[in-house]
Amino acid sequence: MSLENVKVLFFDTFGTVADWRGSVTRKGEDLAREKSLPEMDWDAFARAWRAGYKPGMAQVQCGERPWTPIDVIHRERLDEILTDFGLDHAVGEDDRQAMNLWWHQLDPWPDCVPGLTRLKQRYLLGTLSNGSVIGLAGMGKRAGLPWDFIFSSDVFKAYKRDAAVYLGAIDLLNLAPGETMMVAAHNDDLTAARSHGMRTAYIRRPYEYGPDQTSDFGPEEDWDVVGHSMEELAQTMGT
Amino acid sequence: MSLENVKVLFFDTFGTVADWRGSVTRKGEDLAREKSLPEMDWDAFARAWRAGYKPGMAQVQCGERPWTPIDVIHRERLDEILTDFGLDHAVGEDDRQAMNLWWHQLDPWPDCVPGLTRLKQRYLLGTLSNGSVIGLAGMGKRAGLPWDFIFSSDVFKAYKRDAAVYLGAIDLLNLAPGETMMVAAHNDDLTAARSHGMRTAYIRRPYEYGPDQTSDFGPEEDWDVVGHSMEELAQTMGT
Repeated sequence: MSLENVKVLFFDTFGTVADWRGSVTRKGEDLAREKSLPEMDWDAFARAWRAGYKPGMAQVQCGERPWTPIDVIHRERLDEILTDFGLDHAVGEDDRQAMNLWWHQLDPWPDCVPGLTRLKQRYLLGTLSNGSVIGLAGMGKRAGLPWDFIFSSDVFKAYKRDAAVYLGAIDLLNLAPGETMMVAAHNDDLTAARSHGMRTAYIRRPYEYGPDQTSDFGPEEDWDVVGHSMEELAQTMGT
Repeated sequence: MSLENVKVLFFDTFGTVADWRGSVTRKGEDLAREKSLPEMDWDAFARAWRAGYKPGMAQVQCGERPWTPIDVIHRERLDEILTDFGLDHAVGEDDRQAMNLWWHQLDPWPDCVPGLTRLKQRYLLGTLSNGSVIGLAGMGKRAGLPWDFIFSSDVFKAYKRDAAVYLGAIDLLNLAPGETMMVAAHNDDLTAARSHGMRTAYIRRPYEYGPDQTSDFGPEEDWDVVGHSMEELAQTMGT
């Protein structure tokens, strides 16, 4: 198991780098204060919003729907849950547009900026995410994530775990699969990456979904690297 | 002529950001010392290498040749000129591979890091270049260019001034054309960008080609911004 050929690290972002649940919850609480909305559980709102993510992508993946950017899927789900949470009348179009951009303004887990900064000394670091290019670039800029490049589902017109994303990323860099490593908090992302010859690093994020977390409490295969944080990954990768 | 809607700046790189002539010349002089090569004009070598760039892309643009990455075009031209310069026997395969990577290690003009660092405070900054993704990302990392994202011909499988590059870039960010600005030292790049509704900034680089420079000594249209450096652009753009 040699990792010395690895040149590029690809990072999943939602959950692996970005704490979407905490971030959306905080944004919701801010909005509620600002607009004097009725008291409610914004953590549940964040989880409900996120729960529309996989079904939304699945429609694209199975061919039921043509290529649809994640920002559109997020917006459709937002409209649904605003109704479910009784906020349909309280939140107008301008606020909805602003809320949809919360996904471009997620905060990273605290270990990410220091860990990625160390890893960047030796490796090229890029996203390989189902986010949009502009969302990922904006999130990285706002949070100080030192990406060398941004790859997203928008580039490949496919969502992970579709092979087109992994193979497209390797091809776009003109590398051998073993020169790349996928870093993710989700076992199925790494299973797909490994099936295409990529190296794998699993980062434990047991609080990603909070009370809704039903999987990914730990590594389910013998991934090349397993760690609790990006700083631990940096240590293991010799940076 | 309102520039206040601009959110993203796209940068041409070869010539506009990177001093390819000076960089390749210095690399050649280093190689010559290291390998005790016969004395020769490495500036002429750099210009001869670069002279294969447009004809190589033209074959792809006119459909004579399928999509061919710039690194392949650079390598083919390298083999030609090593013969022309009488270095065919002196420079073996390993050295040729290393030489081809010189295009990934170009130095920026001195105004670029300070100018881009200022511009980054307000705008998303990305390459929109005929370079390869890995070459552009590596060059940016080595030089400390603070890109938010990397767009390259590889992503669009087309070379500038093909419309697919400009339209693809705008589309991939899901922006209106007028929310983007093309920054280049080449009038024809800006003519193409403007034809698709992008804003335009011309940076004067009168030394790009040295004795081979025959055009682009100044702006040939009323570009939205004209400057001598990225720092002047930063000033004009309010950063």
